[in-house]
Formats: sequence, C-alpha cells, structure tokens
Amino acid sequence: MADSPNCDLKSLSPLQLFERVTEQGEKVRALKAGKAPKDEIDAAVRMLLSLKLSYKTTTGQDYQAGLPPKDLVLINNGTTKEEDEDLVDPWNVQTSNAKGVDYDKLIVRFGSSKIDTDLINRIERAIGQKPHHFLRRGIFFSHRDMDQVLDAYENKKPFYLYTGRGPSSQAMHVGHLIPFMFTKWLQEVFDVPLVIQLTDDEKYLWKDMTIEKAYEYARENAKDIIACGFDINKTFIFSDLDYLGTSAGFYKNIVKVQKHVTFNQVKGIFGFTDSDCIGKISFPAIQAAPSFSSSFPQIFNGKENIQCLIPCAIDQDPYFRMTRDVAPRIGQPKPALLHSVFFPALQGAQTKMSASDPNSSIFLTDTPKQIKTKINKHAFSGGRDTIEEHRKYGGNCDVDVSIMYLTFFLEDDDRLEQLKQAYTSGELLTGELKKVLIETMQPLVAAHQERRKQVTDEIVKQFMTPRKLAFEF
Amino acid sequence: MADSPNCDLKSLSPLQLFERVTEQGEKVRALKAGKAPKDEIDAAVRMLLSLKLSYKTTTGQDYQAGLPPKDLVLINNGTTKEEDEDLVDPWNVQTSNAKGVDYDKLIVRFGSSKIDTDLINRIERAIGQKPHHFLRRGIFFSHRDMDQVLDAYENKKPFYLYTGRGPSSQAMHVGHLIPFMFTKWLQEVFDVPLVIQLTDDEKYLWKDMTIEKAYEYARENAKDIIACGFDINKTFIFSDLDYLGTSAGFYKNIVKVQKHVTFNQVKGIFGFTDSDCIGKISFPAIQAAPSFSSSFPQIFNGKENIQCLIPCAIDQDPYFRMTRDVAPRIGQPKPALLHSVFFPALQGAQTKMSASDPNSSIFLTDTPKQIKTKINKHAFSGGRDTIEEHRKYGGNCDVDVSIMYLTFFLEDDDRLEQLKQAYTSGELLTGELKKVLIETMQPLVAAHQERRKQVTDEIVKQFMTPRKLAFEF
Repeated sequence: MADSPNCDLKSLSPLQLFERVTEQGEKVRALKAGKAPKDEIDAAVRMLLSLKLSYKTTTGQDYQAGLPPKDLVLINNGTTKEEDEDLVDPWNVQTSNAKGVDYDKLIVRFGSSKIDTDLINRIERAIGQKPHHFLRRGIFFSHRDMDQVLDAYENKKPFYLYTGRGPSSQAMHVGHLIPFMFTKWLQEVFDVPLVIQLTDDEKYLWKDMTIEKAYEYARENAKDIIACGFDINKTFIFSDLDYLGTSAGFYKNIVKVQKHVTFNQVKGIFGFTDSDCIGKISFPAIQAAPSFSSSFPQIFNGKENIQCLIPCAIDQDPYFRMTRDVAPRIGQPKPALLHSVFFPALQGAQTKMSASDPNSSIFLTDTPKQIKTKINKHAFSGGRDTIEEHRKYGGNCDVDVSIMYLTFFLEDDDRLEQLKQAYTSGELLTGELKKVLIETMQPLVAAHQERRKQVTDEIVKQFMTPRKLAFEF
Repeated sequence: MADSPNCDLKSLSPLQLFERVTEQGEKVRALKAGKAPKDEIDAAVRMLLSLKLSYKTTTGQDYQAGLPPKDLVLINNGTTKEEDEDLVDPWNVQTSNAKGVDYDKLIVRFGSSKIDTDLINRIERAIGQKPHHFLRRGIFFSHRDMDQVLDAYENKKPFYLYTGRGPSSQAMHVGHLIPFMFTKWLQEVFDVPLVIQLTDDEKYLWKDMTIEKAYEYARENAKDIIACGFDINKTFIFSDLDYLGTSAGFYKNIVKVQKHVTFNQVKGIFGFTDSDCIGKISFPAIQAAPSFSSSFPQIFNGKENIQCLIPCAIDQDPYFRMTRDVAPRIGQPKPALLHSVFFPALQGAQTKMSASDPNSSIFLTDTPKQIKTKINKHAFSGGRDTIEEHRKYGGNCDVDVSIMYLTFFLEDDDRLEQLKQAYTSGELLTGELKKVLIETMQPLVAAHQERRKQVTDEIVKQFMTPRKLAFEF
C-alpha cells in the first residue's frame, strides 16, 4: 500500500479513504499534542481537509470518526445501530418485531440489491425452468451482482458456487439446510462446480472447543450436507484445518487478503476489540479466500479469474463486503452473492435458531414423535385464543411459525396459498395447520436421515479430497 | 479462555492477568459512564482491586495501564523505552553508543540469562570439545533455558534446532551468516535435526513486494544458507508460503497460538497499531509455530513434546517471549533460546547492517576487489588521526569495526588477541589492521561463493521437501 499522501486518491476504495482520513486526523492530533511548529500543523490540517473532501466526493457521505463508509457498515455490538434497528452480524441476529427482521431496511443498510421480479424472470429465461420456490417466495431476497453472473452464464463463461458452514455442533437443524438445498438447486440448473467450506478453525477460535472436536464436527456436518444430494463429481467439501495444510493456493490468497485489510477495518466490520485474539482478527481472510478460484488450483487448473457466486444467509454478508472491497486490489473479481432471510426459531421470528437449544427447532436427528411434540408444544401460533375468536377473526399468517416453516418446506404453491387463505379466514384452526406442518416435516426429516445413512466415511473422504471435478478449465 | 472473573486467577499467566485488569478497568469506566447503579459499580471496582492485587502478587510489579508485564516488554516504537535505552525490536536496532547496544542492560530488560563461564564450561563437558568461538567471545551472549536443553541432552532425550530468515532481498551479507554458522556448529556437535523457516509471507506483508518475489528470494536465500554446509539428511528448510499449504500440523499450531494471543498483547510486544493489516497482526503466530515439534509430523513422527532450541539474534526474542508465554497454555514445551549480538555495519556499531545499503557491509556476492575497497573506504576505525598520535596513544578496539569483524570471523584466538594488543598499544596501524581483515574476508567470501555454486536447484528442492530426516522419534 502506498504511504505517500500524494498518491492518487481516486484509486482508493471508500474504506481506504476512510482509513487515510482517520490516520491523518490522528497525525494532526499528535502534532498538536507535541506542540509541533505551526506551519507543520497547518499543512497536516490542509491535507486532512483535502482527504475529507475526497471521502465525501467518493462516498457521498461526510466523514464521521469511527463510522466506516456506509457500504461497509456494519451493525455490530450495538454501537452503530439505531434504536429501532435490527441487529444482524455473523454472530447475532436480533429484532423486536414478531414478523422477524425488516429485510427491506437491511438491503438499504447493507447496500445490496433486492431480488425483484425482473431478476427472477431473467433467471427463469436463463435456466429454462421455473425458479426455486426459495426465489419465488422471497426466501432468497437480496443479491450483489447476480446480473453479472447471468451475463457470464449467457455468454458461456464459467462460474462456480461457494457456500459454507461453521461446524459448531454435531446436531444440525432443518434451518441449516436452507442454503444447502438452494445451492444444490443452483448447482443442478447451472451445472457448475461447487466448493463448501467448513470453518472448523473459526469454531475452535470462537468456542470453548478443542481443535480435534471442531474437526470431528466438520466431518459429521459434512455427512448431513452430502445427504442434501450434492453431485460428488462436481462438489468439493473442505475443512479449513485440513485444506489449509493441503493447498498453497489457498494460503496465498489468505495472506493477500490479510495484507489488504487493517485492524481498523475488521473492527468496523465485525466489531472486534483489542481484547480479541489475533486468530479471530485475521479469520475473515480465511472465509474470504474461497471466493477466488486460485484457492482451488486442482479444480480450476490454476485459473485466477473465474467468477464466484455465494449463496448464504444475510448475516454472512459482512465477510463478503470485505472480500468485495479487497478483490480488485489483489487483481481478483468480486464474488457475487445471493442472500437468504433467517430461518425462524419455533418460538417465533425474533431470533435465529440456535443449535444449542433443542427445542428451538426441528433437528435432523429428531424422531417423528419428537417432531410432532415440538411443533405442537413450541411452534408459535398466529391463531386466536379461542376457537370462536379464531373462526370469527382468523389467524395471523405474518407471525405464525407453522406458516413460516411451510413457506420454506412445502413446495406446492397452490396448497400453501390455500392454507394461508384458510388460516387467515379462520376456516383452518391452529391444530389443523400444525398437523399439516407435522405431516410435511416428518417425511422430510425421515428421508434426510435415510440419505444420511448411505453417506459412508468413504464417501465423506471422497468429497473432502482435493481433486479435479467434472469440468474443464 | 474462561470468562468468569471467579476462575482461578493463579492459573493465569502475567499477560493474561494484565489483560484481565485492563478489561475490568474498561468495564468500570463503562459502568460509570453509563451511570450504572452504585452497587454494580462498587462490585466492579472491588473486582478490579482484587485483580490488581493478583497481578502484583504474580509479577512483583504494580499494574500500569498500557504497560504489559516486564518479562514481555517490548521495546517498541519508543513508547516504553527510557531516554538512554537502546531500541531493539524485530524491525529496529538503534543505539547512540559507538560500542553498540548495551547487552547487559538488554538481558535485564528482556529477562533472559547471561551465557556465563559456568554455562560455557558445561557445554564443553557435554559435547566433549571446545565450544565455538561465538560462545567463547560472547557473540552468543544470552539464553533462555539452555540448562534444560543440556539436562535433556545428558539424559539422552532428543531436542531439535530451529532458526530462520526473512528473505527481504536476494543479497545476503556476511552478518546474515552468523546464526547459520553457529547453528551448523550446534547441529554438528549435538547431532540433532534442524528446521529453518524462510518467512516469505512476512516479507510480502511488510514490504512492497509481490508474493512471487518473496518466494523467489526465499529460494535464492536457501542457496546461501545451504552453502553454510548443513547436512541434507538432518535439515529441513521451508518457505512459509510453501509449507503452510503442505502441513496440516503447522497450521493447527498456528491457529492454536492465534487463539491464545490477543491484539492487546501483540500491540504491547510488537508495537502494532490499529492501522496495521491483519496479516501483520497475526503473523507472530507463524514465527512461533515451528517452536513446536508437532508442526513437523514428517520429522518427529507426530510427537508433540520434543524440546526446541532456537539460536537467533536478540532482536527476534519478542516473538519467542510470546511463544514461551503461550506454550504451556496449549500443552507444549517452551522453546529454549540462544541470543546473539547484532552484527555491526561497516560504518560502526550504532546500527544493525541493512541489506538495502550495499556499502553497509560485505555481501556474499562481493568480489575480492569490492571487499578490499569497502573495508579500506568504509570500515570505521578506532585508530588515531595521525600515525604519530596512533603510535603514541594506540587505537580503540571497542569501537573499531575491523576488530569487531575479526572477532566474528578470525577463528584463531591467539592471533586475535595479538592484533588487539598491538592495535591498542599503537604498534599496529589502522591500514595494517584493515589488511588483516581484507585477507580474512576475501577467502571466506570466495569459499562461500564456491560452495554456493555447487548448490543446484535440485539440492534446494531436496532440502525444501517435507520428509523424514535421519533420526528416529
């Protein structure tokens, strides 16, 4: 990075400019505190003003100390969030609204784009079939540069998919499947390679967990992921703890990202503090690096510039905003993104589900009986207090968790619409609605369990072996 | 790491305690600023006082905000250094004294131990031969836990050597050879495995240099290192950029260290700031990890607890003070150390030599003529202004660079003593002394060049291939 204040400010990203203003501000303070000669202070102040002007020209915002530019802001540890805003970062999702997070506001705050009807229609034309119900129903609701991916696809240019999971426990719940179900569909309709990162190093760094345990969870979680039906010839699943020690290309990209991101930046983006361990502080580069095809020379034949598309829940976006900021500075294309909403807890949409609370969701290991009990006992209802009131006023689909779950898992559009109308009108009672959900979830989970049983250690090993996939690059 | 303030404070290291006091102090300030209830503030203050007391009991020092415990201090960017103290960290060596850095003071400040006559005699008994002149002449002057290494050696327990180099340029100078010459001797007399780390990733992070260039320098430097005469069957040389992508054991140790070191700590130890890139901030873990034998499963058969001995210049000590602080917390033995003085620039002992100034030292690529010219023109003299004065008052060996260089490179003790006496008495003139130095350095450099020519790419490849060495573990 250039040190000279005279370098071309136009070539700097908003975050770099932010950095430069901050540094120059510190310099001015230091000069004043050190009682430096007046002309030296004046020169430093002039430079500060000129930097602030460049910042405003570039970002359209006034510089505010401690507040990085809007596209990279960051709702972390409450400090930069307004009172009525939802809290969304990779470790926290909180809202006070029973309908869940306000996703339209999130799009504005994160600076992403809404997946609108035009884009969905364009996807339909490109793939020649009806888009996945996650797209049609707004479950994947936001994107970055999906148009570019479609441009490339229409011009027969290759791209690849990247998604991942932090293996924090052995037990995965149905919500964890959402990005994988969608990614599997994308892989099928676009016929592209897919890499899946299991961030066992992240879990070791963040949790009170041994390295061995984190790695064990990664392999266990891989089984559930494989059971979603990924094509073994087109999919590479890797644990960081494993793959970092197997691929020089991966580490080189990590260190490139690490050179171009400062502590100030990760502090702004992720809310890290001086008391955080240096592993956490440098980890974002490890989640960034799979966005670059050169991290997988065995798949892409060493090619550096293959476009990446990342389907993920919106809480992972901070990692990729950072990645997109760095990409052009290390000569790499920015990854495109498709963001999903959060999967609600059985108790309601105010929070994301937690793997540590067995009653917060339906787990992939649950028996039919457990599923029935959990839904009947814990699924938050939008129905009325008495049958009479319910018949009269109808249920509230916006806060009813059974309706939410069915929106995720009931593929039949007509049936879903019918259920919503009947529930809203009061014709359908809460107990009846829950019965539909139970009957939807029981076979879904049973089928997953059946597929998972087929996933032997040998199959996991194959998926997790760095190798060429069924594509030519 | 335990979050509860009630966990056993005695189990915490001085640095961890320092952290806890700092955090608690921040908490108290936050409570006061947030106008928290009085009893809550009082409880937090009591906890703060109790933590400060534990800190004092453990370290024997009062807690001082921003000043980490003495054993880990850290002469960085001048902030914690007293006015008349030398500046010594991995990137800077500065002293105002023409005799060079005050090493006795450094031992006290760094909390290491002096290599005294007893220790040198013990080494002589252990190896059954005269110790290297670098030991006898105080060039390796300080150590940590060398007694333990000798205990282990006498009890037939294995240990291994670890040293390294940051490949900042193609050109190495004679000063760069000091740790390698000494390490080669240690390897011979103790007959132990040796690992040599080339921190090309560090150079990429710190310098304006591409990854490819850093890696190229690493391989070029490896040739000069190999030319020192290391045994190919007992030595593994590795580039970080290469080896990190080849060894899962190495990355696992890196991430373990990264989990146990906070930004506060590296800030204290290395003087990093918020504007530093996250690569720099997390790099110390990469220099730490080769101190643990499990980073080299191919050499140590996966054994975790083999003692490591690190010969290095004293400016590298901050990395290993950090490593020694972390080691017990990740179940690893602390590495032992042998510290050398700095090699003086031709212009005098005030600074370490710089690879970027060709006149600051004798380079391994210099011709006999260049060596002659450099010594005659640039070697700082402790001689008098006129021959008459010199004959009358004699020269000053303490500041004379020719004498210093001969102390490093002239193996004959009697001859060196003779020269010193003759120079001090005025019998030997500066020109005559320089002639002796020229005649010492010319064949030394020529012989190195001859050996380097024999080092083919194939030999470099062999040294740098992860493999079993000629030892059983």
